[in-house]
Order: sequence, then structure tokens, then C-alpha cells
Amino acid sequence: MLHNEYDHIILLAHGSPDPLWKKPFEALYEQAVEFYGTEHSSLAFMELTTPTLEDVVGQLDEKIKTVAVLPLFFAVGRHLRHDVPAQIAALQTEQLRIDLLPPIGDDELVKQAMYTVIARHLGREE
Amino acid sequence: MLHNEYDHIILLAHGSPDPLWKKPFEALYEQAVEFYGTEHSSLAFMELTTPTLEDVVGQLDEKIKTVAVLPLFFAVGRHLRHDVPAQIAALQTEQLRIDLLPPIGDDELVKQAMYTVIARHLGREE
Repeated sequence: MLHNEYDHIILLAHGSPDPLWKKPFEALYEQAVEFYGTEHSSLAFMELTTPTLEDVVGQLDEKIKTVAVLPLFFAVGRHLRHDVPAQIAALQTEQLRIDLLPPIGDDELVKQAMYTVIARHLGREE
Repeated sequence: MLHNEYDHIILLAHGSPDPLWKKPFEALYEQAVEFYGTEHSSLAFMELTTPTLEDVVGQLDEKIKTVAVLPLFFAVGRHLRHDVPAQIAALQTEQLRIDLLPPIGDDELVKQAMYTVIARHLGREE
């Protein structure tokens, strides 16, 4: 059961020409799917790696009316300000609303985890 | 006092043509500097954003003999397999050892935080 108003969440990673690069994103997604099932979440890539956002949206069940895209990015730059909104605008229809969420790196929990890793390297365990 | 054998740690982010993109990395770095001081850590960017790794290494105090580069990346791809090692190889000298650490996204703490954020969106608070 989804917590938010969305019927489905797409985890969106950047993509890379290196085939090994996507492994950690797939592992994260598989962990989510194990608990929530594929009907509530998908994994897509902005460029260079498949499936694309278009592939994933094209395969959604027609019962799905609202989708959130959660970027697996650290920060908002050109991609999240321009490229991804343009991809979303092209895929949105009267029957399917697609919202772009803030990037996962913006979340306080992720920021705090990164700071803790840095602090460990610098000498303080938190 | 550094926990590891390194005299200095450089946080290395990707870089972006979007000037606002670097803000969260600067915020993370400022949080570290507030506690540890600039003598133990720096922030650098692989491309498109300054300071570069070369800028930062060029300004290190000559007392610093060992440096670790901690990539603020989610995953190892072309950049961490080829581009950054090449940059490091060009900057390393007999007097200065520079090691490349695994990316921060590889750390279990960061992975767990990302999973928790995804799980929250999907309906389960962990």
C-alpha cells in the first residue's frame, strides 16, 4: 500500500556507459521490490542505460493514474531542472499525472548518513 | 586528528554546468570543516566546477604526505574507473601519496538511508 497519493514510484538514476555502474541502483531497487512488489515501483535511467523513463511509463498498468519520479541524484542541476522535466512533460497525459520529487540526496536522512561517513574518515564516529 | 593513516581527505563531487548544483556538496563540506578544520579536508570537483582536484592538491601544505580522495558518487562507473584514477596518477609524486576510496554511496549507512527514504515513499517507515 502506498503511503502517498501516488499509484506508482519510479526510481530514476542518471545512467552510465559503464555496464557495472547500474549494479548498486539495481540492488537498491530489488530490495524495495522484494517488500513492495513491482506493481508499486520501477527503476529507470535518464540516459545511456535502459530501461528509460519512456520504457517504464510505457509498460505501466493502465489502472495507474499518478506516478512519482524519485531521482537517485545528489543534487538538482541541469538534468533535474531541464532534461527530466522535459522527459516527464512528453510522457504525461490527461490520464496519467507524473510528478518529479526532490532528489534522494536532498533528504535529511541521506545527508546525515553521508556526513557520518565523512566524519568517520576524519576521525569521529557519530 | 584523522582516524585513518591519511593526513588529508578530499571530498570529490562530479561537477555540473549548473552553478546551483554544487550547493549541497558545499553545505556537507562546510559541516565537516566546522568540526575538523580546513587542514584535514577539502572539497573538489572532477569536471565543470571549481576547484578541481589539481587546484586543491596544488594548495596542500607541504607537510601533507598522504591524501585520500572520497568520491561523493553513488556508484563506480567510467569516471571512478578511468578519469579520476588518471587525474590522481598525474598529481601523485614521490612525496605525496593519493589513494582513491570507494564512493560514499557504497557505504552501508548511505545505502540504508536511501532505502529508508524509498520505503517511506512506498508506505513503510523504517
